[in-house]
Amino acid sequence: MSKPIDFQITGSDGEARTGTITTRRSLIETPVFMPVGTQGAMKGIRFEWLEDEMDARIILGNTYHLFLRPGIETIRKLGGLHKFSTWDRSILTDSGGFQVFSLTDLRKLSEDGVEFRSHIDGNKCFLSPEISMEVQNILDSEIAMAFDECPPGDAGYEATKKSLELTVRWAKRSKKRFDEVQSEPGAVATGLFSSRNPVATAPGSDLNGKQALFGIIQGAGHFDLRTESLERTVEVGFDGYAIGGLSVGEEKSVMYSVLEHTVPKMPKEAPRYLMGVGTPEDLLEAVSQGIDMFDCVMPTRNGRTGGVFTSAGKINIRNARYTEDPSPLDAECGCSVCRRYSRAYLRHLYQAGEMNAAILISHHNVAFYLNLMRNTREAIGVGNFPAFKRNFLARLTENEPLGV
Amino acid sequence: MSKPIDFQITGSDGEARTGTITTRRSLIETPVFMPVGTQGAMKGIRFEWLEDEMDARIILGNTYHLFLRPGIETIRKLGGLHKFSTWDRSILTDSGGFQVFSLTDLRKLSEDGVEFRSHIDGNKCFLSPEISMEVQNILDSEIAMAFDECPPGDAGYEATKKSLELTVRWAKRSKKRFDEVQSEPGAVATGLFSSRNPVATAPGSDLNGKQALFGIIQGAGHFDLRTESLERTVEVGFDGYAIGGLSVGEEKSVMYSVLEHTVPKMPKEAPRYLMGVGTPEDLLEAVSQGIDMFDCVMPTRNGRTGGVFTSAGKINIRNARYTEDPSPLDAECGCSVCRRYSRAYLRHLYQAGEMNAAILISHHNVAFYLNLMRNTREAIGVGNFPAFKRNFLARLTENEPLGV
Repeated sequence: MSKPIDFQITGSDGEARTGTITTRRSLIETPVFMPVGTQGAMKGIRFEWLEDEMDARIILGNTYHLFLRPGIETIRKLGGLHKFSTWDRSILTDSGGFQVFSLTDLRKLSEDGVEFRSHIDGNKCFLSPEISMEVQNILDSEIAMAFDECPPGDAGYEATKKSLELTVRWAKRSKKRFDEVQSEPGAVATGLFSSRNPVATAPGSDLNGKQALFGIIQGAGHFDLRTESLERTVEVGFDGYAIGGLSVGEEKSVMYSVLEHTVPKMPKEAPRYLMGVGTPEDLLEAVSQGIDMFDCVMPTRNGRTGGVFTSAGKINIRNARYTEDPSPLDAECGCSVCRRYSRAYLRHLYQAGEMNAAILISHHNVAFYLNLMRNTREAIGVGNFPAFKRNFLARLTENEPLGV
Repeated sequence: MSKPIDFQITGSDGEARTGTITTRRSLIETPVFMPVGTQGAMKGIRFEWLEDEMDARIILGNTYHLFLRPGIETIRKLGGLHKFSTWDRSILTDSGGFQVFSLTDLRKLSEDGVEFRSHIDGNKCFLSPEISMEVQNILDSEIAMAFDECPPGDAGYEATKKSLELTVRWAKRSKKRFDEVQSEPGAVATGLFSSRNPVATAPGSDLNGKQALFGIIQGAGHFDLRTESLERTVEVGFDGYAIGGLSVGEEKSVMYSVLEHTVPKMPKEAPRYLMGVGTPEDLLEAVSQGIDMFDCVMPTRNGRTGGVFTSAGKINIRNARYTEDPSPLDAECGCSVCRRYSRAYLRHLYQAGEMNAAILISHHNVAFYLNLMRNTREAIGVGNFPAFKRNFLARLTENEPLGV
């Protein structure tokens, strides 16, 4: 039977592993970092750079934001998020749940779903597992996410347990409605093979052209609840599994121990996605536990405030020490920003309030993350991942050792 | 005797003319629009696009802004504005005067120069003809401008006359100090021929590697003062001549009649530069009077607020009528933005507060201006400029006829 995505493991080194995810729109090498294009654009970075220079194969779109603006009817009329935004490679959409639950004062939770007020105009809106599946189907992403409830990072046992139960019931409803919309006429995407997408799957492959759906494991910092959530989510059955509810305010040690506890129990034959994480160190730690996919706004968000990721640690371009520094952001980076522009020039642009500072630093940061994953895959491929990780971490304090 | 720039007239159609300006860094075809890179960057547009796609040969840098930030000592240490910013083709720098005179409340004018307070930190600063020449020499622009006083557009006769006299005295002092700094050791730029600059003059040509200096004609809306300013500026002797003090608040008919009066009297064998102008219509009008060079912030400034120049007139992307419009900004434009993105998408980015709206619209606008000048040169070349201009103007009311 044909399937929506194909996942193959191509190598491993300890728990760390390399693989390929083939979607109807692109071949993705894992471990992969998915840059976040919240509102259908990568903040400050034109798609041309993501395609031609960075060769990103998959990006993230946020259902909550696009649902509110431009609105799902507009995107439907314009042919889905790919056609609307012109990004022809793969897209993963989140379910909208995480953003809604961030609106603490603006929402009302029920068994049915979540009522909330739009952060844009205050209008009353409603999201449910069913609506989320319908919206993600119209967005036309390659990978959709189940609609879950995400408790706070420091949630107590009982609250987490109750939330987990709801998430499991919503996972079943998500799956049911997802399967229905996949079977409706017009649900199979068309026009997948474009000139901008040389890495797309050739027509005639084993894929069925439909969306894939990932389930989400919750349970906060409670190991047994993580296990329970994992087992019951796998029981529902998804094309891939995500770990949610980490990097939401808890201690870093909690995240790492939850990963250590949970990841080995996840199905080996499906992609494993750690949502919303994280720093370069977090990525390497999670890869070493067997995670395949990541997304995070850090590269672009930091880029807009002058934060720069480098192979010698994070720096902040506002620091006066860079005023006359002719060196690139990262001497070991081969991105188009590091090949051309100096720290002195980028600091000047930042200080002068020029948006080109955000444009260029965000570009470097995303390139840095994608290169880190490229190097990670290579290290796993040659069985050198532990040493690669050790060396990478050892160098992170060379720049601005007191942090930024 | 070798010279700093070489200007050749290559064709004409009425008063309109085509030509080439060869500087030590690039070959510039005229009439030319020079995009404005105020602080050493083009707001929202990476130099890569200006070079590779738009093939801009010369841009503008603002002495006032760079003098204050990052400061001239920083730029000197980093090897001048080209090396600092990585823009390898030609740069024209203004004298700083225009910006200082815009700070009405913050300046004190004397025969010697202008004392003013920095708009950044309120510190007391001083600019004079001599200092402006020294600063522009350190900036290392191909074309420097004389330090002038710019009276308001509606200045009365006596005030304009008095200002004009000062501008002539300052023109002489500018010329004197300019010549001195050109002869100082290290004044001749080095490292002019880079891989990013395939259009640079070959070493061994007739150019002397020094900067060129343009004089500025003032006189507000008073014809006889314009004539007097022109004659006395030409008497001082410059490599090119600019018309200043237009598009500063006066009626459009005043600008056009000043051009009609002044341009035919300007030396034919030197480049003629209309400073800070203007709309596409203004450019064509001025070209028809014999102007060769333009600069204006409109393409990028409008781009940041959603204003789009098109061959059917200006539109504003905020307009709700574009919400579901799948067509490009300008169907006749071949720029990378119009080849890829829709009005609907760009409007969404603007409404969502994404900086990519400014990035993409500014890109199109600058490309539109550069293409307009390319088409203008072609029309002059084939003796079809009057019809070209007539057709262009006739179409400008097709979009949003009531204006934006």
